[in-house]
Amino acid sequence: MVRTDGDVMRVSDHVRQDRLWGRLMDLAKIGATAKGGVNRQALTPEDGAARRLLADWALARGFSIYQDAIGNLFVRRSGDDDGLPPVTTGSHLDTQPTGGRFDGAYGVMAGLEALEALEDSGIRTRHPVEVVAWTNEEGARFPPSCMGSGVYAGRYSLDWVCAIRDPAGVMVGDALSSIMVGTKEAAPRDFEAPIAAYIEAHIEQGPVLVTAGETIGVVTSVQSQNLFEIEIFGVEAHAGTTPRASRSDAVLAAVEVISTLEQLGLDGADALRFTVGRFIARPGAPNTVPSHVTFTIDLRHPDNAEIGRMSDLIERLPGEIAAKRRCRATVTRLSDSPVTPFSEAIVDLVDRTRKELGLAGRRMPSGAGHDAMYIQPLAPTGMIFVPCVDGISHNEAEDALPADLAAGTRVLADCLAELAGKAR
Amino acid sequence: MVRTDGDVMRVSDHVRQDRLWGRLMDLAKIGATAKGGVNRQALTPEDGAARRLLADWALARGFSIYQDAIGNLFVRRSGDDDGLPPVTTGSHLDTQPTGGRFDGAYGVMAGLEALEALEDSGIRTRHPVEVVAWTNEEGARFPPSCMGSGVYAGRYSLDWVCAIRDPAGVMVGDALSSIMVGTKEAAPRDFEAPIAAYIEAHIEQGPVLVTAGETIGVVTSVQSQNLFEIEIFGVEAHAGTTPRASRSDAVLAAVEVISTLEQLGLDGADALRFTVGRFIARPGAPNTVPSHVTFTIDLRHPDNAEIGRMSDLIERLPGEIAAKRRCRATVTRLSDSPVTPFSEAIVDLVDRTRKELGLAGRRMPSGAGHDAMYIQPLAPTGMIFVPCVDGISHNEAEDALPADLAAGTRVLADCLAELAGKAR
Repeated sequence: MVRTDGDVMRVSDHVRQDRLWGRLMDLAKIGATAKGGVNRQALTPEDGAARRLLADWALARGFSIYQDAIGNLFVRRSGDDDGLPPVTTGSHLDTQPTGGRFDGAYGVMAGLEALEALEDSGIRTRHPVEVVAWTNEEGARFPPSCMGSGVYAGRYSLDWVCAIRDPAGVMVGDALSSIMVGTKEAAPRDFEAPIAAYIEAHIEQGPVLVTAGETIGVVTSVQSQNLFEIEIFGVEAHAGTTPRASRSDAVLAAVEVISTLEQLGLDGADALRFTVGRFIARPGAPNTVPSHVTFTIDLRHPDNAEIGRMSDLIERLPGEIAAKRRCRATVTRLSDSPVTPFSEAIVDLVDRTRKELGLAGRRMPSGAGHDAMYIQPLAPTGMIFVPCVDGISHNEAEDALPADLAAGTRVLADCLAELAGKAR
Repeated sequence: MVRTDGDVMRVSDHVRQDRLWGRLMDLAKIGATAKGGVNRQALTPEDGAARRLLADWALARGFSIYQDAIGNLFVRRSGDDDGLPPVTTGSHLDTQPTGGRFDGAYGVMAGLEALEALEDSGIRTRHPVEVVAWTNEEGARFPPSCMGSGVYAGRYSLDWVCAIRDPAGVMVGDALSSIMVGTKEAAPRDFEAPIAAYIEAHIEQGPVLVTAGETIGVVTSVQSQNLFEIEIFGVEAHAGTTPRASRSDAVLAAVEVISTLEQLGLDGADALRFTVGRFIARPGAPNTVPSHVTFTIDLRHPDNAEIGRMSDLIERLPGEIAAKRRCRATVTRLSDSPVTPFSEAIVDLVDRTRKELGLAGRRMPSGAGHDAMYIQPLAPTGMIFVPCVDGISHNEAEDALPADLAAGTRVLADCLAELAGKAR
């Protein structure tokens, strides 16, 4: 919050629930699915249209826009001292193939609403305040996830990610060029440009807040997350004439790998998250012994030691099982994120602000990975969670209540104003 | 063979290895792959081009052409009594996605070569002799396999197969219309039009002949074959925030189904053929718990009782395992073929002819399904196998020796002439 002459004037008083909700609904039209969800995968024409809409809203309000070479799109409200690094918020505009209306979009729209609330309040800040739409957070079309924030933070090289291909063979670099031209008036922004502080608002994507009847999750950390791609190579053969003893069946080898790893990952606390989300068998004909399988394992745990133990098994077992079945396996670790602790100062600020606003909430870790995880090494970082209906996310049925979304935005707006400092 | 005035004049003497091989190589250019194989899936433009080439060759030699409503394409050399049903040979022109140059194509080209040899010999037969290219034998793009011969023989209804869709959602009926227009000068042919006898030439697609150093397989039967499609329905969820206990993971359920069935199918004799050739997981994003899996099981055995036992398990287990994992399963039997015994008269004729031609060979069952299986109820039916290199098929590396292919064609030509009878 920003205090003026003894009064308490809160930026959050200028947050408008109707404006925030209206923009979320406008955004949800881009890539809308028949079941009420959104399919706006990274670097598709739909993603480009969403970025353009954000740019139009920003420019209409007199904010300036920037983009870096991986397509991260920044909206800036100037501060009194524009030489200072910005206080930044944001999230992402891309979705899962059958994603919802709020995952990512909420964080960007909450950020834009906070900038508008600052503008409406007439308050000038010392630091500039920015909202960023990070490129390809989901990693659904092009793994790994958090590609834009990861490149921004120097975790991934631009060259490496640009050579990544989607299942249709399209490269990130080519898809990126066709998207970035849509916002070509954006001024350039360097990777790792300093950030004074970063707070990301997001739906929880899990059941904790909604079950407890609380409105604000003060996020203390993000659990560890490793993503693996496993390929099994066998030999095509005729399904009718080839005896089992002379088959090299890539699907059956992959099935044994997954089945074995699932069993080894069972834990009484149900803390390990083990997900095979992609499984592609080739050539894919019912009467040909399959010669090639690609599958992914998304592995998460709140404890670095536990994820390390399971990751070691994932590195080792596919090769052993494939060899036993006259196949060959490769294991590629596409991403590798240890537990990310957030800044105590930001966590305290968010928790204090939600109490001042009279909002029920709690401190909690994040089960999902977020761009904030990649920004954490660059700047004091934190996150604000709001509930989503039934804890459902990465699903077209994902939903959230307008009042909860506005509440999170009010906390965000006051925190940003506090961090950006009152201009003198 | 056809005897003339005490001499033995064999049609097989007029079979030309160079003409046969040249046509096989011309055909292999249509859909040729970089690795030397062929991708000419049913009802694609490539399939259409192959059908057109066959029609052109036939018309150039003065043969007439016919097609039925499922696109089976017949080439006819008239007999002296064209009111008699034809003696028929043939196979198919479609291939697996990564198929070879000889699977199917050989049977059609051997048939055409036999017709040419008859023509070159000047011999007139009582019955007409026909070669047919059956539509969609492979069933790779549109299961079930042997669609054209199955519809011809009344096993499948035209309406049912026309509504089948490929993975991209294209319907058989629509794909068929766009193909059949390419041979629209073909006269119409009714389903189940009588056939006097049917012999299909084919590469063995297995290792028996090549291992024994023999040239001719006299095929006595086709083993039983059932094709199942299993669908598992779960619930999409976020891979990071959703505990195992509340997941409905369609991939892990499918993996347990396949793993369990594989174990239950292990037999000491290695006679059961259990193949999961297609496995499609949706939505297919690495960080979303998958909600839908479709996979196929191609099941074959030389004994009807054994395939029945295993088929019962396939009908029952997916539902039980899915329920235990909070998912739902459906099992659809796409095709169901018991052991097909071939005509003793045809088997004897083929065996006697190969001996008269001095060709080493043996009687053997077929490990693969073939169109002949569907024609068997309509007419005395048999098959002639020739070796393929290393027994490899359904693979771009599939290969065969020109001399073996010609030898099989000589047996075929003499058998067809014998069955069609000398005109008086």
